[in-house]
Amino acid sequence: MEFVRPTLLLDKDICLKNIERMAEKAKSKKLIFRPHFKTHQSAIIGDWFRKYGVEAITVSSVQMATYFSYHGWTDITIAFPVNFHEINQINKLSQEISLNIVVENKESINYLNKFLKFPVGVFIKIDTGFNRSGILAGRYNTIDGLLKFINENKHLQFKGFLSHTGHTYNAKSRHEIFNRHFDALLKMRSLKNYYKKKYPNMLVSIGDTPSASICENFEGVDEIRPGNFVFYDLMQYQLGVCHFDDIAVRLVCPIVAKHPSRNEVVIYGGAIHISKDSITNIDGKELYGQIVINKNDKKVLLDERNYLCKLSQEHGIIKATHKDFNDLNIGDWIEIIPVHSCLTANLMGKYTTTNGETIPMMGSGNDDF
Amino acid sequence: MEFVRPTLLLDKDICLKNIERMAEKAKSKKLIFRPHFKTHQSAIIGDWFRKYGVEAITVSSVQMATYFSYHGWTDITIAFPVNFHEINQINKLSQEISLNIVVENKESINYLNKFLKFPVGVFIKIDTGFNRSGILAGRYNTIDGLLKFINENKHLQFKGFLSHTGHTYNAKSRHEIFNRHFDALLKMRSLKNYYKKKYPNMLVSIGDTPSASICENFEGVDEIRPGNFVFYDLMQYQLGVCHFDDIAVRLVCPIVAKHPSRNEVVIYGGAIHISKDSITNIDGKELYGQIVINKNDKKVLLDERNYLCKLSQEHGIIKATHKDFNDLNIGDWIEIIPVHSCLTANLMGKYTTTNGETIPMMGSGNDDF
Repeated sequence: MEFVRPTLLLDKDICLKNIERMAEKAKSKKLIFRPHFKTHQSAIIGDWFRKYGVEAITVSSVQMATYFSYHGWTDITIAFPVNFHEINQINKLSQEISLNIVVENKESINYLNKFLKFPVGVFIKIDTGFNRSGILAGRYNTIDGLLKFINENKHLQFKGFLSHTGHTYNAKSRHEIFNRHFDALLKMRSLKNYYKKKYPNMLVSIGDTPSASICENFEGVDEIRPGNFVFYDLMQYQLGVCHFDDIAVRLVCPIVAKHPSRNEVVIYGGAIHISKDSITNIDGKELYGQIVINKNDKKVLLDERNYLCKLSQEHGIIKATHKDFNDLNIGDWIEIIPVHSCLTANLMGKYTTTNGETIPMMGSGNDDF
Repeated sequence: MEFVRPTLLLDKDICLKNIERMAEKAKSKKLIFRPHFKTHQSAIIGDWFRKYGVEAITVSSVQMATYFSYHGWTDITIAFPVNFHEINQINKLSQEISLNIVVENKESINYLNKFLKFPVGVFIKIDTGFNRSGILAGRYNTIDGLLKFINENKHLQFKGFLSHTGHTYNAKSRHEIFNRHFDALLKMRSLKNYYKKKYPNMLVSIGDTPSASICENFEGVDEIRPGNFVFYDLMQYQLGVCHFDDIAVRLVCPIVAKHPSRNEVVIYGGAIHISKDSITNIDGKELYGQIVINKNDKKVLLDERNYLCKLSQEHGIIKATHKDFNDLNIGDWIEIIPVHSCLTANLMGKYTTTNGETIPMMGSGNDDF
């Protein structure tokens, strides 16, 4: 394949395998599989999920829900504390599709109670310890208060409790992922046991890719909403959540300069292509990506002593070992394995598959949602 | 003004003042003012520069050069080590406008020598100590070698030496900015003195916003290429390079949740809106933005103990003091002052002026360059 400038390369086969593996796991555990589409943000990639039986999806914004609704998805959960200023778009969507929103405070429900025109499913957001958003799992009084408010509105239909155990992303080991997931399970199960008499159809929905990928115990859970697994990335690989070969996206960049005095090469590919998310490298420094090169017509992954160590707006700097530096030449196309594929995809705005097909994303071209 | 979702607000008056100040400074120092348009990436904002006499511009990619050429700019320097894989686009551009490129190695010149079809100005990139790209200023042999190569090609016209003293952005004080700038001046002046006999029309072009904003000594310099000054941001403010009132962009975000137990609020506005660039706050932690609220119909800047402390893809978390927490309410629109305005603008893709006008950027709508 010929490249001209930084290009986000997507291996469709790997991506399909990732989708299939997760879909089968959900099936075997009798879980509703409602994948999060914020990672890929693409109608075409979304369609790949259909052949694995996926009919319901998760998104992170009203805009994204509108985009996927336009592309034929009719059952969408917006897993973000509702921004009630988008009431017009929410009313429009809920007239057309089965829409679920997430609430965690009375102010939002109060606003919705005034302006909501059509039925909307509502999940109460539960904080299982990530401390980003949601009500702490033990706060029954607060939850009862919200439920009272929800039940006063004929359009709001209580669907259940939704959590995102995002602190699995900060785990220091697989063991810690298991622990945090299990702790979250206990909390969500207590809620279920407490409320299931009154709400027998209530669902427990959990979200993170690490636990969905490696944990086996989902007792009490009804639905999973992982997103990142579709591509995975270095962060997941470092966590022990995926194999290196499961990573489906790479940023292809040309080398534009070489600096032997400091074993560094400059690539065209910077913060506006790959994003500034980093992990800590073996040398204790920030790593923005790992490097795959072509050597004797084979793809070779360089070890962590060769890594993307600095990013400006368009420049990337790769620190190399003396030995591998000689294999990095001006004009060469190298592949950067991204630290956080969601942010890289969001910046690049489209994909090129390894077969040369271009796959647009939300926001490309004329899609203005 | 009514908002619906995160919106990048641009104060046109501040922006015009920033442009005017820099244009007048360049004029008073008899410097060519070739502003870097990578910060705003917008044809409309580009046009604002014309009334201050700007006719020549800087960009950071061939795509950006193509965009601004399409919008009427006829004298453009691409201040990035040339990516020769874009030779077709370079040939197309150089047929139509006065185009300058930047080189720092023989490999690139060698390639250009084979495939360049029309005259192109060429700057040699000099590293004044930032250690990102360029030839170290004292390497006369290397420079002579490049010049020999350049002179062998009828299309390549040597224009001079170009540097970006980007280590002024890492300075710990204004004093250090002066020092680094002066050190760069000495290096560039030595080069000029050495080569001016042979190349009497040769230019010395320097680039960074910190030195262009606060330094007064530009002896030996012919051209300045600052970019960030058009908006400034918290990084420049923390460096002592601009006043707080010179910052022209703000991300307007709604508060969607409140967590009194940890004095935190959640906003709709995350890494895909503001970018993950951070500075170090007074508490030693990463700060992604400062906060302006509306209080009694007045805009009030909260002190640094209230700050954007965490970002996910769409969520932002603000840590607040107990006192100010009470002024942050669900549904309120607050303003985030960005750490790095270039990256925030690049992510947001368009501006809304304080007068309600929408200003598109490169990549919006149908502009596919």
